[in-house]
Amino acid sequence: MSSAPAVVLAAAARRTERIRLTSAVSVLSSDDPVRVFQDFATLDLLSEGRAEIMAGRGSFIESFPLFGYDLADYDSLFTEKLELLLNVRDHEHVTWSGKHRAPIDSRAVYPRPLQEQLPVWIAVGGTPESVTRAATLGLPMALAIIGGLPERFAPLGQLYRRTASRRHQTIPPMSLNMHGYLAETTSDAIDESYPRHAAVMNKIGLERGWPPATREDYEEQCTLRGAYLVGDATAVIEKILYQHEFFAHERLLIQLSVGTMPHDSMMRAIEILGTEVAPAVRAEVARHNAAAS
Amino acid sequence: MSSAPAVVLAAAARRTERIRLTSAVSVLSSDDPVRVFQDFATLDLLSEGRAEIMAGRGSFIESFPLFGYDLADYDSLFTEKLELLLNVRDHEHVTWSGKHRAPIDSRAVYPRPLQEQLPVWIAVGGTPESVTRAATLGLPMALAIIGGLPERFAPLGQLYRRTASRRHQTIPPMSLNMHGYLAETTSDAIDESYPRHAAVMNKIGLERGWPPATREDYEEQCTLRGAYLVGDATAVIEKILYQHEFFAHERLLIQLSVGTMPHDSMMRAIEILGTEVAPAVRAEVARHNAAAS
Repeated sequence: MSSAPAVVLAAAARRTERIRLTSAVSVLSSDDPVRVFQDFATLDLLSEGRAEIMAGRGSFIESFPLFGYDLADYDSLFTEKLELLLNVRDHEHVTWSGKHRAPIDSRAVYPRPLQEQLPVWIAVGGTPESVTRAATLGLPMALAIIGGLPERFAPLGQLYRRTASRRHQTIPPMSLNMHGYLAETTSDAIDESYPRHAAVMNKIGLERGWPPATREDYEEQCTLRGAYLVGDATAVIEKILYQHEFFAHERLLIQLSVGTMPHDSMMRAIEILGTEVAPAVRAEVARHNAAAS
Repeated sequence: MSSAPAVVLAAAARRTERIRLTSAVSVLSSDDPVRVFQDFATLDLLSEGRAEIMAGRGSFIESFPLFGYDLADYDSLFTEKLELLLNVRDHEHVTWSGKHRAPIDSRAVYPRPLQEQLPVWIAVGGTPESVTRAATLGLPMALAIIGGLPERFAPLGQLYRRTASRRHQTIPPMSLNMHGYLAETTSDAIDESYPRHAAVMNKIGLERGWPPATREDYEEQCTLRGAYLVGDATAVIEKILYQHEFFAHERLLIQLSVGTMPHDSMMRAIEILGTEVAPAVRAEVARHNAAAS
């Protein structure tokens, strides 16, 4: 498991005009923050200001031994590299020193992005310390929920907003990052997505010792309180609004299908999402916010 | 001065169908060969097999202090990182150890490229040791000639072929990498390209203590024996064939203009190159080779 997110996003940059280009997730801990910044600054120039970095400690840890990092430094690596990334983002000339990377003595880093400040999101799993760090730094947070009962993560959202509000005048946006898939009917959505999902999960599971995926578990995750945004437009709208009651999140990022889907099916899922789900959710959230204020 | 070549090339991959996507130059010495491989393997998948890596020691050395490398290791860094790059290219599971990078103990590196073997070219300036290294490893060589009298570099081409023929059954191709620009007339080509060229060269020269660019020097480089492939189709064809007498190179890579050109002018230069120069050069070289055999 590995990838070159900015390379893939650059290809997407030339085929799109409006969507934001975000990595999910750049494993900063085992990468060089200066290179990550340069890659995404280049992407920002190519996409006319649509790039953003989503930085995380990484749940896949294969990259640590490959690049010579010690898992014992899991947390201090991320802390330090995030600090350097923000330094490079906020200064054209960088002076920095730390424990895990060679120091930089007043060196210019190019290219600079088109956006005045390249957005850096912090992607977190379920670790409260990660939530506190994002909030303390005043960085937007993306909470990845790919299993279990999403509503159980609600306290992390509260922790984030409470911590951020103590330190910063404005609370940065929060995103939920989830798996999902849409079709004409909920049973179509499940029938089409499950075999692909199971194939990928079982392949990864072999290396990680997970139990085999079952259709029963999958269907359970596709119900209102489950973690997958899989269904027809009505079911997914209802589910997003249900989760919004707990999180009041400003953004939702859906990985459309785990595993390879036929191109036509993906295009259809995107169309349902853009033409039916997103407008309905936006309207309902706006109505709700207006009523609350 | 820095860049994210695979990111830029990925954008180009989605706008083109046939041209090869090559970096000129990936400064391997101050980068991680595993990441470089992953970036270009991703690019290869995105472009359906059109990626190649052009690896060099780098004539711009700003990246060394930025990434914590010592210029005293200029040569050993490149040797070692090239060795790792070829190891990763040729093996899905890598075991490697060296002086300048953490060891790898039987780790898989993904993604793998579409091409069975991702091409790795060695870009050289004028150093005989670099030529010998490329030839000894049996790697194709790109000789960058961006000033002086190109014909003076001919002995490097001979050294390359002599060394390669002693070690390998087939001699890999050789490329000349040069600056150039084409227009309807040679004076148009010079008038349009000189101001841009001078602006870039003077900007870089300020940091490096070069003397200011002059129109006189530029025009000299645009003559038959000079280093810039600037002119109308006839002049550039004649010049390429003149150089071919010295080098018998299998490939020519032209950086079309130094500095920013209007888009229309670039498209026109590419058109002249593709419709007039390339066919004439290919025909003449084929005729020449047929006569010689």
